[in-house]
Amino acid sequence: MESGEIENFLHELCEVAARETLPRFRRPMSIDNKLDGGFDPVTIADQQAEAAIRAHVARQYPAHGVIGEESPAYQENAEYCWIIDPIDGTRAFISGLPSWGTLIGLTRNKTPVAGIMHQPFTGERYLATGDGAFLVHHRLRTGLRTSSRKKLAEATLLTTSPFHFPDRKIAAYQAVERQCRLARYGFDCYGYAMVAAGHVDLVIESDLNAFDIVALIPIIEQAGGVVTNWQGDVACNGGDILASANPQLHEQALAILSG
Amino acid sequence: MESGEIENFLHELCEVAARETLPRFRRPMSIDNKLDGGFDPVTIADQQAEAAIRAHVARQYPAHGVIGEESPAYQENAEYCWIIDPIDGTRAFISGLPSWGTLIGLTRNKTPVAGIMHQPFTGERYLATGDGAFLVHHRLRTGLRTSSRKKLAEATLLTTSPFHFPDRKIAAYQAVERQCRLARYGFDCYGYAMVAAGHVDLVIESDLNAFDIVALIPIIEQAGGVVTNWQGDVACNGGDILASANPQLHEQALAILSG
Repeated sequence: MESGEIENFLHELCEVAARETLPRFRRPMSIDNKLDGGFDPVTIADQQAEAAIRAHVARQYPAHGVIGEESPAYQENAEYCWIIDPIDGTRAFISGLPSWGTLIGLTRNKTPVAGIMHQPFTGERYLATGDGAFLVHHRLRTGLRTSSRKKLAEATLLTTSPFHFPDRKIAAYQAVERQCRLARYGFDCYGYAMVAAGHVDLVIESDLNAFDIVALIPIIEQAGGVVTNWQGDVACNGGDILASANPQLHEQALAILSG
Repeated sequence: MESGEIENFLHELCEVAARETLPRFRRPMSIDNKLDGGFDPVTIADQQAEAAIRAHVARQYPAHGVIGEESPAYQENAEYCWIIDPIDGTRAFISGLPSWGTLIGLTRNKTPVAGIMHQPFTGERYLATGDGAFLVHHRLRTGLRTSSRKKLAEATLLTTSPFHFPDRKIAAYQAVERQCRLARYGFDCYGYAMVAAGHVDLVIESDLNAFDIVALIPIIEQAGGVVTNWQGDVACNGGDILASANPQLHEQALAILSG
């Protein structure tokens, strides 16, 4: 697939997903029901969006695979696979906070080659298709470039919550945080977009699923950043993730996290 | 002043401030310099916006007072005073995160009567002028109503960082958090807007300045919520703040925080 064809299709999939998610965002019903374990419009939004994406892929590219949270993997050994999470950040979604996003990644022979993070409320689309990384917002297309800050002492670090780390990992996370200039919490997949855009320097999280991270890898890498797990291996299988603005910063954080 | 006159002027002041803040948001220069203690475009944005607001008030309402962070209070004993913070959430601002806001409150004889929280990047304006609380966004005007969740066990709690509390207050905060259904971090003044809009049920913070909270009090109160300090006294002088969706929830959280 050519880069332009991939980009057009990523935008189509975002629109298909947004028709299911955005009308359910900030509806009081969504909040009341989600955490009571009853009727759950958030999961319905997630499921409906995933079903709509799967149907659209099957229609346009019947030979491709799809891997997502809500249904079993489909043709997962196909050359091209779409790795999707229609609502990454459901807790933000139910709290009215526009830091959730729709993640759609494309792998070719198991390697991430393209991805998009769409925040339908703000309208931001952070994407990469092999030709570099871009923000598309209000019909403007801006090239993304990670920051050139190369020392932890200059870096801004994001993690969704410092309490998401299990006991044996929290010490490693905190050791990095202590060396950083600034740490901020919250923001889910939006934080990775901020690394690609050069505003934030590091994101550290643990125990992610593949569909939480695959879409974000090409965006950060094609903007100049690095994404691996805490052992320095490929991030595309999920696990404990470190995303950095540049290789120098990555090396310093990795030395602490893997130690 | 009539409610309509106040609202028109709040919108004017937001536009005056946004001309100084928004063009400086997500500019790499702002990030690099802010925390090095050198040339500091964030503080410049804050100062320029405050100066522009002060000048606009002096031109339109020369008898009114203005109280803000960047300059000494002006006519602070006037019947009407504008209490302003052009960039509430500077750390979010320098991290590219759209959870900062411009806060403009109006007091009459020291009592908050109107306020607005403007997030110029998303375009949301949460406001109250005595006629109820509203969100103005994309030319749509929507009435705001806090949630009716009345038990901590049903509540979503927000605080900017669990590490902002000094030692003697963290235990009280954590005692509330443990009873809540969900806690989220980050989001600065945006979190209070989410309480007014019914998506979040509680915000707890410590050691705020008056200009961090005065604008938000009428928005939450006129949407049905309650804002006091941790002793249950008026919040308009700042300090340790509890904002709740309704009186029942407020009472339960206050019993823990004041104990």
